[in-house]
Amino acid sequence: MPPGPLLKGVQVYRLTVRDRVMIAHSFQGEIFGPAQQLHGATYVVDAEFQREQLDGDGLIVDIGLAHKALSEALSVISFRNLDDMSEFEGDNTTTEYLARWLFDRLAAQVASGGLGPGGKGLTGMCMTLRESDVAWASYEASLA
Amino acid sequence: MPPGPLLKGVQVYRLTVRDRVMIAHSFQGEIFGPAQQLHGATYVVDAEFQREQLDGDGLIVDIGLAHKALSEALSVISFRNLDDMSEFEGDNTTTEYLARWLFDRLAAQVASGGLGPGGKGLTGMCMTLRESDVAWASYEASLA
Amino acid sequence: MPPGPLLKGVQVYRLTVRDRVMIAHSFQGEIFGPAQQLHGATYVVDAEFQREQLDGDGLIVDIGLAHKALSEALSVISFRNLDDMSEFEGDNTTTEYLARWLFDRLAAQVASGGLGPGGKGLTGMCMTLRESDVAWASYEASLA
Amino acid sequence: MPPGPLLKGVQVYRLTVRDRVMIAHSFQGEIFGPAQQLHGATYVVDAEFQREQLDGDGLIVDIGLAHKALSEALSVISFRNLDDMSEFEGDNTTTEYLARWLFDRLAAQVASGGLGPGGKGLTGMCMTLRESDVAWASYEASLA
Amino acid sequence: MPPGPLLKGVQVYRLTVRDRVMIAHSFQGEIFGPAQQLHGATYVVDAEFQREQLDGDGLIVDIGLAHKALSEALSVISFRNLDDMSEFEGDNTTTEYLARWLFDRLAAQVASGGLGPGGKGLTGMCMTLRESDVAWASYEASLA
Amino acid sequence: MPPGPLLKGVQVYRLTVRDRVMIAHSFQGEIFGPAQQLHGATYVVDAEFQREQLDGDGLIVDIGLAHKALSEALSVISFRNLDDMSEFEGDNTTTEYLARWLFDRLAAQVASGGLGPGGKGLTGMCMTLRESDVAWASYEASLA
Repeated sequence: MPPGPLLKGVQVYRLTVRDRVMIAHSFQGEIFGPAQQLHGATYVVDAEFQREQLDGDGLIVDIGLAHKALSEALSVISFRNLDDMSEFEGDNTTTEYLARWLFDRLAAQVASGGLGPGGKGLTGMCMTLRESDVAWASYEASLA
Repeated sequence: MPPGPLLKGVQVYRLTVRDRVMIAHSFQGEIFGPAQQLHGATYVVDAEFQREQLDGDGLIVDIGLAHKALSEALSVISFRNLDDMSEFEGDNTTTEYLARWLFDRLAAQVASGGLGPGGKGLTGMCMTLRESDVAWASYEASLA
Repeated sequence: MPPGPLLKGVQVYRLTVRDRVMIAHSFQGEIFGPAQQLHGATYVVDAEFQREQLDGDGLIVDIGLAHKALSEALSVISFRNLDDMSEFEGDNTTTEYLARWLFDRLAAQVASGGLGPGGKGLTGMCMTLRESDVAWASYEASLA
Repeated sequence: MPPGPLLKGVQVYRLTVRDRVMIAHSFQGEIFGPAQQLHGATYVVDAEFQREQLDGDGLIVDIGLAHKALSEALSVISFRNLDDMSEFEGDNTTTEYLARWLFDRLAAQVASGGLGPGGKGLTGMCMTLRESDVAWASYEASLA
Repeated sequence: MPPGPLLKGVQVYRLTVRDRVMIAHSFQGEIFGPAQQLHGATYVVDAEFQREQLDGDGLIVDIGLAHKALSEALSVISFRNLDDMSEFEGDNTTTEYLARWLFDRLAAQVASGGLGPGGKGLTGMCMTLRESDVAWASYEASLA
Repeated sequence: MPPGPLLKGVQVYRLTVRDRVMIAHSFQGEIFGPAQQLHGATYVVDAEFQREQLDGDGLIVDIGLAHKALSEALSVISFRNLDDMSEFEGDNTTTEYLARWLFDRLAAQVASGGLGPGGKGLTGMCMTLRESDVAWASYEASLA
């Protein structure tokens, strides 16, 4: 949504880093059809960090720390069967659900300083998981 | 536009599915130069569906129905010369115009239940048509 | 951010054109690690133009002028060592910084009529520079 | 390998169609590290068909039948745990292994007429499976 | 095809440049189904030039001339209805057919010096036309 | 080149891994035009490994070692001004030249066991460097 039509003078900087993860899982519910069977996915993952102003170094956030934070968050599920993880018990680990899960993990890293001092200036993030070349989902929200 | 700078606590989920369509058409008006001649395009089309909350299955909308709805909307113009279709009479079927046309068709499907019960929770959509590797256009709007 | 959750009835059209540029530069500051050395980048650049309504020809802006404006803006830095340009003296020419620099140049072209009469209707723009397949940055803002 | 340096006057036509499939599996052997755990993958699959001359319609092979043949071959493993399929018992279903498996299935379809009369003129095929944005494997061979 | 298994010591350098073109056309023959109707396509076109050794400047061919040669060849069909061009009378202008047509035009440019002195060292070329994100065709051959 | 038309019964397996590197350099010679100035590039690099038969684990080569070998080779030039490196003195470090340089470094790693025992079975390799979205070059050769 362009800021123009909403509020004059609004601006945003965004930095995105990409990584990837392979997992297995299955879904509960007739709506999922054959995806109720145990299967898996490669997610190509884009983590976007947002700020209204650049910091003194001309950065949104340290790109090395951004890559590291994303990689660490993904390592929790990498090469795992999500059906066996208590963290996801009772939930369908859909692409959109995992986008939110990843957001929350990175938001926690931002809060605890894992993205460095630059993390304090972040105003929002957007996590996108591409499950194939023809389907992807994202979760975007403001940071408190 | 990141929710952060605008309104604290705002969030959005997005699901996108991709399809494609080949059409012929021509444009009226000097601004179009050689594109006033009959030519054509492949549009690689991304249909994005937006919600503020996931439904009980952990979904934005049934991805199978999303693919089906997009495919049906595109079938109306698939392998057609748009210059011969009364639907587009008097209009230039530019990429941005077609993004809007597609939005309206999918919005009608959402309204009539074609995307299932999940469609009721949709708050907005964005349709993007890529006319080549170096040019694309989109139309995004809220759903009533 | 979808307009839906924010303000009902909001809509936006977007047109994007892509180009590319190769430059050399170095960064000042320990946070940059090995990037403090003189190195370079290819930026694949997406310039997005936004409007609330299409013009009388069914366009956001003349796509030929959009490509031309982007190409002209990039020609200023093409095959240059940015460390030697007075324009950037004292600044780190990070990807996000260059996204803003490009925005300002194109905004000036819009203001001076370089995008044709259609440029008057533009409400916002977003400039994205992809520095590799796994990292990119953008600057988006409203137009006065 | 370009025909030039090898044999003068050699030529080849190639047609490629793309599809995708999601599966779960695990690997046996220390070399696989964490991939010994049950995990999964999305494979974006490119099936390439080769001929020395086009047929009377100007085609390598009917593209509709090519898409259909690829889709049918992939349906055998779609949303399955490959560890549970007798077809793969005792084998590691690596990306390169699956490229060969897919080749053999499509070669059988070519032999049985599933690609139509145009299939008779095919001289070779190449199957490529992309397991992520940074890794892929293929199997290419001549057709008897 | 890797040179290894065929002939030890074989090597090849390849340079590829990309451009794009939009056309209208229709096909003759029941096998084409709805594509018998007048429609169109965007072709994203990759022109690959092959040599066994680099020239004295460390080049396969002048990349500026390569882009120019490709652009000129495509300008012949750009924004045209191919059904109206005597050049294609009686032929189905399929993607694979156009790959060959483009090869022949570029081969003629190579022969007439349009790619500069570096063109003399070329041993082969490959032309690829992508008609969508899920289908493409190519023609590769040696140069006399 | 498909093996079919050349030699019946020929086959090849290929595994490709992708990485990226940013460098600065300049070229000598009028043919390079503005690229005679100091500038830079991001190369997105694909390293392809070829075998005629899979090994006992169902692999072409250990993909972890393949990624590591590519990363190590690229680290030599990463964030460097190639004009200052004695290794390249007197040479134009064009994209095609660097593809060959990278091939030789990886071939040395294969010879010294850096790709593990699987490296012994490799029959050829192909290195591709993408300098932008519209231009790339490669070097392919057999392994002794």
